Amino acid sequence: MSKSGDDRRLSKKAYEARLPDVRAALVRMQVELKSSKFPVILVIGGVEASGKGEVINILNGWLDPRGFETFAFHEPTDEERERPAMWRYWRTLPPDGRMAIYAGGWHADALHEDPRSARELGQFDAMLRRFAWFEGQLAAGGALIIKVWLNLSKSAQRGRLRELESDTRTAWRVTPDDWKSQRDYDRLARLSERMRSATHQPGAPWYVVDSEDPRSRNLAVADILLSRFRIHMRARSRLASARRRRGRGIVPLRPAGLRRLLSLPLDNKLSQASYEKKRDKWLGRLNRVVRAASQERRSVVWVFEGWDASGKGGAIRRLTDAIDARDFRVIPVSKPTDEEKAHHYLWRFWRHVPRAGMVTIYDRSWYGRVLVERLEGFATEAEWRRAYRELNEFERELVEHGVIVLKFWLHIGKDEQLRRFRDREATSYKRHKIDAEDWRNRRKWQSYEIAVGDMLSLTSSRHAPWHLVAANNKRHARLEIIKSSCRQIEAALGV
Amino acid sequence: MSKSGDDRRLSKKAYEARLPDVRAALVRMQVELKSSKFPVILVIGGVEASGKGEVINILNGWLDPRGFETFAFHEPTDEERERPAMWRYWRTLPPDGRMAIYAGGWHADALHEDPRSARELGQFDAMLRRFAWFEGQLAAGGALIIKVWLNLSKSAQRGRLRELESDTRTAWRVTPDDWKSQRDYDRLARLSERMRSATHQPGAPWYVVDSEDPRSRNLAVADILLSRFRIHMRARSRLASARRRRGRGIVPLRPAGLRRLLSLPLDNKLSQASYEKKRDKWLGRLNRVVRAASQERRSVVWVFEGWDASGKGGAIRRLTDAIDARDFRVIPVSKPTDEEKAHHYLWRFWRHVPRAGMVTIYDRSWYGRVLVERLEGFATEAEWRRAYRELNEFERELVEHGVIVLKFWLHIGKDEQLRRFRDREATSYKRHKIDAEDWRNRRKWQSYEIAVGDMLSLTSSRHAPWHLVAANNKRHARLEIIKSSCRQIEAALGV
Repeated sequence: MSKSGDDRRLSKKAYEARLPDVRAALVRMQVELKSSKFPVILVIGGVEASGKGEVINILNGWLDPRGFETFAFHEPTDEERERPAMWRYWRTLPPDGRMAIYAGGWHADALHEDPRSARELGQFDAMLRRFAWFEGQLAAGGALIIKVWLNLSKSAQRGRLRELESDTRTAWRVTPDDWKSQRDYDRLARLSERMRSATHQPGAPWYVVDSEDPRSRNLAVADILLSRFRIHMRARSRLASARRRRGRGIVPLRPAGLRRLLSLPLDNKLSQASYEKKRDKWLGRLNRVVRAASQERRSVVWVFEGWDASGKGGAIRRLTDAIDARDFRVIPVSKPTDEEKAHHYLWRFWRHVPRAGMVTIYDRSWYGRVLVERLEGFATEAEWRRAYRELNEFERELVEHGVIVLKFWLHIGKDEQLRRFRDREATSYKRHKIDAEDWRNRRKWQSYEIAVGDMLSLTSSRHAPWHLVAANNKRHARLEIIKSSCRQIEAALGV
Repeated sequence: MSKSGDDRRLSKKAYEARLPDVRAALVRMQVELKSSKFPVILVIGGVEASGKGEVINILNGWLDPRGFETFAFHEPTDEERERPAMWRYWRTLPPDGRMAIYAGGWHADALHEDPRSARELGQFDAMLRRFAWFEGQLAAGGALIIKVWLNLSKSAQRGRLRELESDTRTAWRVTPDDWKSQRDYDRLARLSERMRSATHQPGAPWYVVDSEDPRSRNLAVADILLSRFRIHMRARSRLASARRRRGRGIVPLRPAGLRRLLSLPLDNKLSQASYEKKRDKWLGRLNRVVRAASQERRSVVWVFEGWDASGKGGAIRRLTDAIDARDFRVIPVSKPTDEEKAHHYLWRFWRHVPRAGMVTIYDRSWYGRVLVERLEGFATEAEWRRAYRELNEFERELVEHGVIVLKFWLHIGKDEQLRRFRDREATSYKRHKIDAEDWRNRRKWQSYEIAVGDMLSLTSSRHAPWHLVAANNKRHARLEIIKSSCRQIEAALGV
């Protein structure tokens, strides 16, 4: 962690002499940012009475307020409490070309817990690991993340509190909690040091700024912001020129998944009569377990991936037959909207994460990142390679919050697909389901097989395993999905 | 209100014979809807035990679940309670090409209040007027709204409740409340009749469906949906062919506003020294009143409109200097995003309505509807003419919830604008602020004057008056805005 700030106090005159340049540079920065393809995330944390609010208000005065927003996290709302912990931070993230300033950041949520016992400290550390992952992921996605910690020595803090108390206009700002944090100074300092070191990383470093002299402090924060912005812009332009669309990644990373895919027997027999009997039995069971999950305020997320025409839609309809319409949403995933494109690629999935006890069914999903985006070059090699871990971690967030995650890959043979395409073209009310893109994807069948294989082996975690479903026979596939879903939900509920 | 349904029971055989056609028609409807530029809103209300949930689940089975969502409104969340009553309905509205099914609709929220005294009935009626306005507005915006009321006679309801109770699989569904509603049948029937007649209108009619025979009921609902959809599609295509870009509305509707605009003295003197002294005094006062509003959980919404280069940005910066950065958001309004374009034009403003005690500053606003959209033909004449009342009602929603709405038109002379455009072009860090569109708008100055005049006279309500600010002198304008804001907030708080 770098140390900034100067022990000598800055005179008012010297300060005001520097202001016009700083302010002009900040406005130029905002203009440049507006047409850039990345967001800026500025966290202002610090000890009590170090002037976090002051710094933020001063930055607000220096910047054009139309280009950014300021957030402070208070008690979570009930809509936030019912979702994984990181959801409330995700929803505030600025789109490309804009900036958000976070008073205290998410870090304040961890520090407010004020952990004391070893168990609480363990939870604290786990929360910090989440934050580090969150920030690392955003940085990898191109965000400029700047975290500033406003520091004040113990005696300087005491002096500041006394100063505030002695002025009638500011005395109301000093609360008993402030004095408590003065008495607890050493312990809190160790805690925030622990927080900073756990969340310090190249893409999201902490800058400690001494805040004894407010004028030096203000300029130091502006300087950090400006210089990190310049460096970021330079790095991005170098990156852009170095970035060539290289090999489309048709070499498998982990052949085990591909082998598993290719060795799946596809043709299963199941008579209509036998199917209907079993289906109705299992749908009844599914209805019961989904209601049981809902009663325990557990959410369920279904993920459907599979070849074009592999029967995802039909399988989803069977499932939804067994669930109360007021409790589920089906999210068809295709091209992102422009608001979605302006965010980290996971943002558009986070926004649909269900509330407690509700169900979201994703018809195609975040796995597009390692399938179509990998093969079509929409993601760079570095991006899709990194994605395997990002997707695992995303699902871990869900599962740790209590969400039950069910993932299905619907597998059909290439011949079977051809048969279905031709059938769709021949049937008037199915014709809308097939277009040129489907035929294009079909020509890349072998590349897709490799990408699917890698996906299966690299993202089948214990908390969210892939179910590979033989789907040449639709009846068999639908029944399989219902059965696996029941079993996994029952296991998760411990029934 | 039309009556559907048939007294004779439909046999299972006759029912099943009709199903394939109905289901195929529903799927075709969904395919057509997908590429249409309007949303479908289907409300299923009805008496207890009439089978609302059943009908919705059946529709869910017949329709492709990827094309719509189902909503039921429970207790408002805290994020909803802190905003005007209609916010929670607006946020669920489907975009163009999609459908939403509402179990009970917003109407259930009114009926749950169960008004008894004359005062409660008055509130009930006021809520219904809001709903009627809400639906009328959406219908005028192109939405297809279908509201179905599932009816059951008193004796049929009793029979149904007994039937449910006698079966061990369904007995749990009958609650003491259900029997209470049976005893209260006549009063509740009068209440829901009153609700239906208050919210029945051409663009959003109620259909009463007799529900004694579930099979007839299901088909009746599907038939209403299908036939309304067909009629709506036909009407829209006729409308589209009849729709010609006619006169751009350069004749004033209400010359009073234009006269007021043209007679505003623009050149006010105010020395820098005198300005700074007054400004600091008034900013202090503004800071206090905004904090007082926040403490009373009152939100503030500022609306800034004005000529290009009239100084909206600068005025906003002065205001935000006096407000804690964590309490406000500035929303720059320009072209809508594609998600916004797929909704009613007010949806994108509703989404930023502040929580209790917070501030939103709109830099340009919903008034674009009667300014740029009127003049550029983005809205048809019928649309922008209707908008005056829609905008007034929108603001009334805010004000009735306790939001303080402050509206400013910043007025400069045409010569002054030219001077500022030239100045911007000559200054490197201001050049980004001016483009070809600004010059184009300038050429339409006189048309804009007329549109602004109409806006001022048609949307200056007592609850949200326009403040017309002479802005040739920036200092004068900024001070005026701060002063008027203080006074209006103080008046609203009664201090």
